[in-house]
Amino acid sequence: MNPGRPGAVDPLPSWNPGRAKSVLLDFVARVTDQSGADFVPPADRVATFDNDGTLWCEYPLQVQVFFLVDRVKALRDADPSVGDRQPFKALLEHDAATLHSLGKQGLMELFAATHAGMSEEEFGRVAHDFLATAKHPKLGTLFSENVYRPQVELLKFLRGNGFRTFIVTGGGIEFVRAISEQRYGVMRDEVVGSNDKLQFEIVDGKAQVKKLGELNSFDDREAKPANIALHIGRRPILAFGNSDGDLAMLRYALGGEGPRLALLLHHDDAEREFAYDREFHLSPLAEALDKADAYGIVLTSMKTDWAEVF
Amino acid sequence: MNPGRPGAVDPLPSWNPGRAKSVLLDFVARVTDQSGADFVPPADRVATFDNDGTLWCEYPLQVQVFFLVDRVKALRDADPSVGDRQPFKALLEHDAATLHSLGKQGLMELFAATHAGMSEEEFGRVAHDFLATAKHPKLGTLFSENVYRPQVELLKFLRGNGFRTFIVTGGGIEFVRAISEQRYGVMRDEVVGSNDKLQFEIVDGKAQVKKLGELNSFDDREAKPANIALHIGRRPILAFGNSDGDLAMLRYALGGEGPRLALLLHHDDAEREFAYDREFHLSPLAEALDKADAYGIVLTSMKTDWAEVF
Repeated sequence: MNPGRPGAVDPLPSWNPGRAKSVLLDFVARVTDQSGADFVPPADRVATFDNDGTLWCEYPLQVQVFFLVDRVKALRDADPSVGDRQPFKALLEHDAATLHSLGKQGLMELFAATHAGMSEEEFGRVAHDFLATAKHPKLGTLFSENVYRPQVELLKFLRGNGFRTFIVTGGGIEFVRAISEQRYGVMRDEVVGSNDKLQFEIVDGKAQVKKLGELNSFDDREAKPANIALHIGRRPILAFGNSDGDLAMLRYALGGEGPRLALLLHHDDAEREFAYDREFHLSPLAEALDKADAYGIVLTSMKTDWAEVF
Repeated sequence: MNPGRPGAVDPLPSWNPGRAKSVLLDFVARVTDQSGADFVPPADRVATFDNDGTLWCEYPLQVQVFFLVDRVKALRDADPSVGDRQPFKALLEHDAATLHSLGKQGLMELFAATHAGMSEEEFGRVAHDFLATAKHPKLGTLFSENVYRPQVELLKFLRGNGFRTFIVTGGGIEFVRAISEQRYGVMRDEVVGSNDKLQFEIVDGKAQVKKLGELNSFDDREAKPANIALHIGRRPILAFGNSDGDLAMLRYALGGEGPRLALLLHHDDAEREFAYDREFHLSPLAEALDKADAYGIVLTSMKTDWAEVF
């Protein structure tokens, strides 16, 4: 099948005609053409996607930061003195300067600490409950609804062409798993992410795995390719990101033999979503933007390449 | 479909009639019966299998130990003084007492150390080459051929009934990945195992992931359920092992809600394979054997339950 042939149903209707869409259609056509020089067997058709800012909205703060605030509120309800202590106080007051000074890793460490002693299954329920009700402060919609329609189409299009699609996120692996199947069609085991130290234990005769409250791996920047090697065991042939935190993953995808494609989403659409890049302290897009051309990374403009956003 | 109905083709022809086979057929029939109380949606049909001694022969030493000896020989060829140093000397002389005193974790640490600086892809090639030629010292066959036919049938039977099948091995994750797709139909990303610390780097402008020569996780005993939670993110509903190293995984599988099944292979067939349990120092079967009944673990006898072994 040549998905780009005239008369065929457009598999990416939310993508405007342009370079990004052409490159995607051409790449999939080439790697699936059994008679072509660029054919890739299905087992090797691995595509990895960042989550925050690539598959769903991450602005003005990553969804997990709102979840962290929610969690700290619950801890304060149980023990009011929590509200007087830093950095909890800053979190409860949405003090942006303090949040940014903690950085994404610091926030992930704090997040891990606030779940110490919880079983993986308990955490899953708490995350599910949060995502079922919590709303974006500006968009007014559920966080879990703010997934990008063009990317959901792309994930389906890739899977329909024998790709397996993985999420490789700086966010918490269990947090993203709470929505990955329903929202993206990506199975829980196909999610790679930041993760906590875990411990097996028997409680009242029942076996369970408990979170120890300490970060095991912060899955950002150079850790992304290393965690891809650990969890997936294959170098992706296609990778999609939106920040400097994804640059190592994009270069890893491009560094193998045969056909390769790396894409970067640029948030340049203040009207339908948000416009930001270098100045977004929690996850800037600067080096990757400056060097995209030199590295052969294809820029995707939210404003011009996407016909729809949500 | 009821796989056990009269007249149907036997999906497990290498299994003799008996308790283990009945329990397996009954379990799969129950969890796939949409109108039954024990129905389990396909996404939750996760089955985890140990590898050494459960899917392929591990006696008198795990295949990876032979690979380690092979690797030490290569190091000695490059630097003859290696052969005079311990523990390399003991390995080259197949000194069983020293091998057993190192223990499985010690051997895995040594294995990691002998691959320091190698990229994941280079390691994959070396492992592939070893497995393509290395033979079992007593059976005379390629190590990679000594997979158990009844288990390959079981893996296929499970996948044919909507299960996803994972390997959870104390062996090296990349070593087992070198054969998992070809021999078991288990994808590389569906293998969980012991793993080394990894590092992303750019060499001559090319991105790669390098092994640091140090063990990151020894995937045995209590580490197995923790690594299942990390990599798979779901509690298995079926687990199969053969040693005390699998007991935590079996109890983890049994500890969830709904239908559950845990099985233990007993190597009691000196004629067709080997007979061993408690006295196998590198991976004994003692506690799990003694407590199988109490925990509800189903024993599988190689001698009586399997019509064929290889």
